[in-house]
Amino acid sequence: MTPVTYGGKYLSGSIPKVNNMSKPLFLHADRLFSSDPAQRAIARDLYASVKGLPILSPHGHTDPSWFADNQPFENATELFLAPDHYIYRMLYSQGIDMDSVGVGSKAGPSSADARAAWRIYAANQHLFRGTPSFMWMSHVFGEIMGFEVALDETTADFYFDRIGELLASDAYRPRALFDRFNIELLATTEGPTDTLEHHAKIKASGWKGRVVTAYRPDPVIDPEHEDFHDKLALFADLTGEDVHSWKGYLSAHRKRRDVFMAHGATSTDHGHPTAQTANLSHSDAKDLFHRVLKKHVSAEDAELFRAQMLTEMARMSLDDGLTMQIHPGAYRNHNARVFDTYGRDKGADIPMPTGYVHALKPLLDAFGNEKNLTIILFTLDETNYARELAPLAGHYPVLKLGPSWWFHDSSEGMMRFREQVTETAGFYNTVGFNDDTRAFLSIPARHDVARRIDSAFLARLVAEHRLPIEDAAQVIQDLTYNLPKAAYKL
Amino acid sequence: MTPVTYGGKYLSGSIPKVNNMSKPLFLHADRLFSSDPAQRAIARDLYASVKGLPILSPHGHTDPSWFADNQPFENATELFLAPDHYIYRMLYSQGIDMDSVGVGSKAGPSSADARAAWRIYAANQHLFRGTPSFMWMSHVFGEIMGFEVALDETTADFYFDRIGELLASDAYRPRALFDRFNIELLATTEGPTDTLEHHAKIKASGWKGRVVTAYRPDPVIDPEHEDFHDKLALFADLTGEDVHSWKGYLSAHRKRRDVFMAHGATSTDHGHPTAQTANLSHSDAKDLFHRVLKKHVSAEDAELFRAQMLTEMARMSLDDGLTMQIHPGAYRNHNARVFDTYGRDKGADIPMPTGYVHALKPLLDAFGNEKNLTIILFTLDETNYARELAPLAGHYPVLKLGPSWWFHDSSEGMMRFREQVTETAGFYNTVGFNDDTRAFLSIPARHDVARRIDSAFLARLVAEHRLPIEDAAQVIQDLTYNLPKAAYKL
Amino acid sequence: MTPVTYGGKYLSGSIPKVNNMSKPLFLHADRLFSSDPAQRAIARDLYASVKGLPILSPHGHTDPSWFADNQPFENATELFLAPDHYIYRMLYSQGIDMDSVGVGSKAGPSSADARAAWRIYAANQHLFRGTPSFMWMSHVFGEIMGFEVALDETTADFYFDRIGELLASDAYRPRALFDRFNIELLATTEGPTDTLEHHAKIKASGWKGRVVTAYRPDPVIDPEHEDFHDKLALFADLTGEDVHSWKGYLSAHRKRRDVFMAHGATSTDHGHPTAQTANLSHSDAKDLFHRVLKKHVSAEDAELFRAQMLTEMARMSLDDGLTMQIHPGAYRNHNARVFDTYGRDKGADIPMPTGYVHALKPLLDAFGNEKNLTIILFTLDETNYARELAPLAGHYPVLKLGPSWWFHDSSEGMMRFREQVTETAGFYNTVGFNDDTRAFLSIPARHDVARRIDSAFLARLVAEHRLPIEDAAQVIQDLTYNLPKAAYKL
Repeated sequence: MTPVTYGGKYLSGSIPKVNNMSKPLFLHADRLFSSDPAQRAIARDLYASVKGLPILSPHGHTDPSWFADNQPFENATELFLAPDHYIYRMLYSQGIDMDSVGVGSKAGPSSADARAAWRIYAANQHLFRGTPSFMWMSHVFGEIMGFEVALDETTADFYFDRIGELLASDAYRPRALFDRFNIELLATTEGPTDTLEHHAKIKASGWKGRVVTAYRPDPVIDPEHEDFHDKLALFADLTGEDVHSWKGYLSAHRKRRDVFMAHGATSTDHGHPTAQTANLSHSDAKDLFHRVLKKHVSAEDAELFRAQMLTEMARMSLDDGLTMQIHPGAYRNHNARVFDTYGRDKGADIPMPTGYVHALKPLLDAFGNEKNLTIILFTLDETNYARELAPLAGHYPVLKLGPSWWFHDSSEGMMRFREQVTETAGFYNTVGFNDDTRAFLSIPARHDVARRIDSAFLARLVAEHRLPIEDAAQVIQDLTYNLPKAAYKL
Repeated sequence: MTPVTYGGKYLSGSIPKVNNMSKPLFLHADRLFSSDPAQRAIARDLYASVKGLPILSPHGHTDPSWFADNQPFENATELFLAPDHYIYRMLYSQGIDMDSVGVGSKAGPSSADARAAWRIYAANQHLFRGTPSFMWMSHVFGEIMGFEVALDETTADFYFDRIGELLASDAYRPRALFDRFNIELLATTEGPTDTLEHHAKIKASGWKGRVVTAYRPDPVIDPEHEDFHDKLALFADLTGEDVHSWKGYLSAHRKRRDVFMAHGATSTDHGHPTAQTANLSHSDAKDLFHRVLKKHVSAEDAELFRAQMLTEMARMSLDDGLTMQIHPGAYRNHNARVFDTYGRDKGADIPMPTGYVHALKPLLDAFGNEKNLTIILFTLDETNYARELAPLAGHYPVLKLGPSWWFHDSSEGMMRFREQVTETAGFYNTVGFNDDTRAFLSIPARHDVARRIDSAFLARLVAEHRLPIEDAAQVIQDLTYNLPKAAYKL
Repeated sequence: MTPVTYGGKYLSGSIPKVNNMSKPLFLHADRLFSSDPAQRAIARDLYASVKGLPILSPHGHTDPSWFADNQPFENATELFLAPDHYIYRMLYSQGIDMDSVGVGSKAGPSSADARAAWRIYAANQHLFRGTPSFMWMSHVFGEIMGFEVALDETTADFYFDRIGELLASDAYRPRALFDRFNIELLATTEGPTDTLEHHAKIKASGWKGRVVTAYRPDPVIDPEHEDFHDKLALFADLTGEDVHSWKGYLSAHRKRRDVFMAHGATSTDHGHPTAQTANLSHSDAKDLFHRVLKKHVSAEDAELFRAQMLTEMARMSLDDGLTMQIHPGAYRNHNARVFDTYGRDKGADIPMPTGYVHALKPLLDAFGNEKNLTIILFTLDETNYARELAPLAGHYPVLKLGPSWWFHDSSEGMMRFREQVTETAGFYNTVGFNDDTRAFLSIPARHDVARRIDSAFLARLVAEHRLPIEDAAQVIQDLTYNLPKAAYKL
């Protein structure tokens, strides 16, 4: 039988029988590039020109306390498994209980032994074949942890022990990793009633790492949020405003935005069910506000209020310069039993069809032609890339397109984004990459995938004689660094 | 002029003028693989490893009487043309009457001479360029019938005569072909009032071929089905239940499911207009049932009843273990004149936009987290692959994704399915291939196309260093054999 | 550093630094072909066989007065920039005022100096990287204008001056260019009240160029059109019919259709918001007509009237033989401020989700099975290619699919069209290419892109052994010439 080199050139021959002998880690230098030699050569060179650029991470969900306290991460399960819904939802889809892989529930922490949980993950690596999680984790294991063998049931304990050792060392504390990852800026996302104490502590610490916040006011904007009234009360406490008057409520937002900006924020973020916007008269908006403050809010009023608040946020952005991000289209907590037992963000959010062309019109009628406002649109519904989003972004000065997001933050997903958006919106109405992640150690992996896919896409354009190589060389710099820097005013 | 070899390596040179001299049959060993040498080499090896595996056909529409009676097929037109709406809809779209190509109408059999009909098909081969029908028929003609020249107007009679001779021979009777095709299991689909006599006869015959049924209760579930009341009466006769009471109606289903299982069924199949489900209280369901029994049923009640019955079927599957298949999204019999003249299933079913995220929630709230229930989802609306279906199947334990279906059972369609589904659902939330066909002789062709496309997809992942070759070697075995075996409990 | 040849083979090496030294024009002979050598060789040959075929342009928006009067075009800005909303919408999206690049407003012509406007365009070439505009303009500059250096800020004046000189020469007058472009037939599009004087003048001039009209009755069919009542009055004047009676109104259409046919028209064109059709009884249609004549028309009535008129137009086409074109799905004039200031057609039309399966049923119930009627469907919503349009066109004799349109008239867009349509509708239910352009000089460029992409698509089918090369050689001829000729009865 002809030997077959892992992650290397495939030598034609019979397919080797799968066995469980320890396999080398799979992380080839040319991964994600086209196998066409002409394209691959170009992609390599483009990628090489941006591989070493600093990471700008203007949108994400890491925990600022990691950088404030700089405590070591605990173990492989706590770090990689329990918090990563990309991973445990896939295990769950195959009948593996969340509790068994370390996911805590409303009742408390998981009852599972961390090592036992890790073994389950290790033994189910086949479920991740062809997924971005496999790509990211291989990067983390190989590039950050130094593993040379693949994770599987035969290496589970070796991995668990070695990761434990590494995490106990100073080189794997959050700040050391931040520096090693060459992160120029990392934005976290906080709710409007967050005290931002961790950001303050980071600043006070003298550490040079730039960790900034972003203003995500959903809990006090969405009347259907389970904590709406509690958060409003906190919102009042923090701002000293009468947040139950329309005027006071808006003032409270302005104050919090100022405080967030003092902690480095350059953007707001809005995760609404739809992209609906509204632009009501002052008195209609005021009346609506008073209706949504009541105990029972109709679904229509809740939707209209969220819609109106996007326009209010845009108005405030015109004043204070914060870039707006709109992330619509997820049916949150679709699995009722999982929500009841485990709570939010457990891999049970499902994308819905999402419309932009009618939904955004009220906001665009008000502010669409402003030159000093930037609104970044995201979607979970790829049918909009070519149909609505690229035409909108290719016309309105305020609009830019965020990268392919969440389920679509993947090699195929990113490629579809570029293929379907570029011809109408160009490259310069997009904003580069966001990692959008809670998984700190995957940040370099995710940015690496984005840089590779952008390189691969550009390489195809060059190899098909659709773009001069010099232009591609400029574009890859822009996509990697200059566009996020400009769009988020970093 | 440089000669150009058909079905072989294209030697650059001027394009030869098209002429009607008899052309070789077009069926290259590397068909459907990428032309990139690196990918092609991998695809060849992956395909070689599964080319000879037995066929599992867990979902299809062949006629069980063929295998019960084992009578010879009549002639080329009766076998290939008259029953294949993929073919005659394309001819019809170009103004060729269905009657002229052998399609019978409500008024009786086609008036066309079988040979004359065949000549029409032969002379219009250009209409099928680039279609799966061309690929399937070339496979049938070449691999099963042994033709070496292509079908066209110059070879129409030769084909017709030769096919007639072959069909008259014992080697081309249904059971002989079944054995030759290496079919390990073939499921047909029967209505709830079918007597299953053919399946009984097959079993009694001592023939080793495994032909099983599947339970498709649509005619007694869909109040808008033209035979609803007649079928209900038969349903009562067959089961001895009072099917006009809610309790008796459900009992009748249970009894028929048991009978179907005794005839080998391991699955149910539900071809609804939408994916809507409902989970009404017992009394609401009972009231609804009594409303839909009446002469005039509102569209809302009909939809709600179908929706409720999906949940009832899931409940029964939890007890008896039948795998559920949901096939929504076709506008049936869109062409009123064709329906009036020719009846159902005449190539005039058109896909509609189909939603899953809201539609399935009632059923999923009830049974989504069960580990011993499998529900296989199909779609005619590809926009759902990445947006709704992969995220749902990548989370809920009960859900799996059926293969790309009907219009999308094609090389591009299958490739889009893998590209858009794999990154979120992985390979292991899919169930391998279904041929879903009435065209018995095309079964090997269809499975061959699926094996080739899966090999080609995996080859790209390997060549782009996204998947180790050993993993791909395992996955192609699983997609071809292990996943359908598990999902359908074969 | 290894030198890198523009537009030629990329020699692996480090990426050259981008600089502003004058760059060669980018227009490679193999552009848009796959970089896979096997596919590229086939694509080259297929393309070579149709590169020189005459241009059939059966649908477009050039100004017939150009060919009637044969006056020279003015300057680069007037010719290329001010009328091309593909270009100035992209500039506008980046905050560049339309006025500054020569776009006239309702208040009058642009205040911008033509040369200054041109410099802005030249300096912003990066915005067009990866867009069809870049491809088209490179073709125009290289093939038609003879430039050898690329347009950028360093060559802006050189371009402006040289273009001015060329336009002043006889060889660049409209008729000379028409002849040089090898246009066999060019259709313009006129409203129902257009006098067609330019077409009459062309005919009377003795010039051999075939410039015909097409009947686009939207202004007298859409009750929501801002000029509906004024146009109706003109419609009465031109026809001598009582257009405020249903009978007279329909007669007026028939008369104008006859006049248009006398000026060469072979088709009608209908640009509706949706694809909705209706088939009301005579009395209901008459009542509806009287309602839409009133000052205030409900949105429902307006939609229903447009829907009914598509069926009326189909009925007339059955009599007079005009091919119908239906172009639905644009949200016109989405940007309120731009519409108020600049008017229609300023790059602010945004595609909407569009349905066909229900919308077309009334019309198809009436005329779907006619063999002597051709209705060509277009879409801005690509989700319909595989889901609705290909299945409809692959069944109904009256239906054909127009090419990928507007935002999708691009290399990726065209490829998606072929990939998603061919397997179900084949090639022969499509109608070849339409350029649909106002930009006369881009016509050869647009047809060239279409020929290249069709060649590239066919080359892939051949290289993947899905289509014999002889068949591909026939198909490329048909797509380029025979199919548009037949569908538009040219």
